[in-house]
Amino acid sequence: MVNLYSMATLTKPTVAVLGLGLIGGSLALKLQSLGYDVRGFSRDPDTRRSANEAGISTPDSQDELLAQLPDDALVVLAAPLEPVLEMLPTVLAQTHASVTVTDVVSVKSPLRDVAARTPHAHRFVGAHPMAGTSESGFAAATVDLLDNARWVLTLDPQTEISRWARVAQFVTATSGRITPAPSDAHDRSVAWISHLPHILAETLAVGSDWQPALGLGAGSFRDATRVAATRPELVEAIITGNPHLDATLGNYIEQLSRARELLRTGDIAGLLADGHQARRRWEQIRDEALDQGQVIVHLDAPDAVERLLAIGATGGYVVSCSSARATALVFEPEK
Amino acid sequence: MVNLYSMATLTKPTVAVLGLGLIGGSLALKLQSLGYDVRGFSRDPDTRRSANEAGISTPDSQDELLAQLPDDALVVLAAPLEPVLEMLPTVLAQTHASVTVTDVVSVKSPLRDVAARTPHAHRFVGAHPMAGTSESGFAAATVDLLDNARWVLTLDPQTEISRWARVAQFVTATSGRITPAPSDAHDRSVAWISHLPHILAETLAVGSDWQPALGLGAGSFRDATRVAATRPELVEAIITGNPHLDATLGNYIEQLSRARELLRTGDIAGLLADGHQARRRWEQIRDEALDQGQVIVHLDAPDAVERLLAIGATGGYVVSCSSARATALVFEPEK
Repeated sequence: MVNLYSMATLTKPTVAVLGLGLIGGSLALKLQSLGYDVRGFSRDPDTRRSANEAGISTPDSQDELLAQLPDDALVVLAAPLEPVLEMLPTVLAQTHASVTVTDVVSVKSPLRDVAARTPHAHRFVGAHPMAGTSESGFAAATVDLLDNARWVLTLDPQTEISRWARVAQFVTATSGRITPAPSDAHDRSVAWISHLPHILAETLAVGSDWQPALGLGAGSFRDATRVAATRPELVEAIITGNPHLDATLGNYIEQLSRARELLRTGDIAGLLADGHQARRRWEQIRDEALDQGQVIVHLDAPDAVERLLAIGATGGYVVSCSSARATALVFEPEK
Repeated sequence: MVNLYSMATLTKPTVAVLGLGLIGGSLALKLQSLGYDVRGFSRDPDTRRSANEAGISTPDSQDELLAQLPDDALVVLAAPLEPVLEMLPTVLAQTHASVTVTDVVSVKSPLRDVAARTPHAHRFVGAHPMAGTSESGFAAATVDLLDNARWVLTLDPQTEISRWARVAQFVTATSGRITPAPSDAHDRSVAWISHLPHILAETLAVGSDWQPALGLGAGSFRDATRVAATRPELVEAIITGNPHLDATLGNYIEQLSRARELLRTGDIAGLLADGHQARRRWEQIRDEALDQGQVIVHLDAPDAVERLLAIGATGGYVVSCSSARATALVFEPEK
């Protein structure tokens, strides 16, 4: 017999957002607008007051907030990497076994490792919403910042799939689109698509020995150095902490050395064709210009994790999730 | 006593544009609109007809065009690198000693070398207008394509400064802004700001071993791979032929390896600060946001070449030129 109360708590659990900056604040505002019981905490009393005025319950202490959480609640650690590394084991230890903990940090494997050193690793599901602006703080938070955002939700051997589904439920409820991925694969991918381009841009901007490069400047240079205009402190915060960046940079240097060899031997055409095709395919996926198909993954099936990871690995994403099944969109393989 | 006729021919010489594609065609249209006697040639009869309808004199053969040129004319070789390498010695040999030859090719040292193997090296002044669109052909040419364009005009030991001034005169008459530079410095600079970014973008787009990079995609990846969306044949034409690209790529790989070391030792902050500052300075120069000062270079002074090169080397550019002097704008040194 169906227990309606417990279905309701499954669908809209209480969510505690620890850290009410740009991402945490926007997430809290969105969940509140969707009718979730949202509780928030910030060390800053002014931020707590502002959040409270926006309808978010903000107890005076984090301990108080955690102590008052009902069963099956979700806790979102919405702070930068370093504080989250400290908060994660504490919050896991302080909360009921039915509480699931997630985060919004842009690297994932260090958190997986910290969780693995506790008896609660199965209760942690790493999350990375791919959104943000150059602004920060609750004042910059908006109810729609995360609308249609891509999220990565980590699926590691230690992850309990029912916990993963709970986090996926609230993320898709906010219109988030979820790429399921192992933490290491996430970090390698983000190293390649985000952290590496930052380093390429900085190194290119610093320039060569010949100054007139400054006076000239092609469109390719403008585009390739654009992110070097970001505040250096912010770039440092973004790129450090990813344990896969060193290997990624090594991999890229190797590929660049191969490109140099191809240039020398007059065989660069193949690389240029591949690069062009890859960029076009990326555009098509980004613009949803390829045919998409819907896939249902039954979460109690023995191959559920494998199927979810295969969806993520080919550019697909989960668009809705219940405790029993995840619905995903996948791109048709190229003809 | 001033000879008015010869002043007039100095100011507005007859200009022959060999090749009426996007750049050659646009240049011919602009010069024609400014009252120059413009003569053009294209192997394609339809292009000749179109150019003729636009008011450009288009003889049926290149030999005929060259044979009919008056003294002191200018010839612009407006074709891609390979044909220009063949045309240059022929045109120098076919024309009167008073005729000056220039070009619009995006690499310069191979042309300098070809000219140097003739007795006419002093009559060649290499030119590179930094303009273009993804389109090509006379149909895409417009009277304003080159308005306010940056041009590099080469100043090599073999260059006769009075010839340089003649080319500079007609370029500045079209509102072009001229960076004086040695051919090698031009090629190194363009390798860094244009050809290298193309290779970085292609290599980045091809991707790593992890596919979901495709499904995700940060703004930094979008910007860093944008030029990989260019047609591969066009990219190949752009990046091959620059004899300095191999060394530039080697230089960049070294700098990237140093950046990797700095990341490993936690000392990346300095590079990020330098990159940020360099990009900001490039933006300021591009946006003319720095104080500018005017400089007059007397072209018969013994240090004229040295001064012109110093202006180019620090981001300055020549805005007007007579046979006697060049007027340039330079950026104030940073405080």
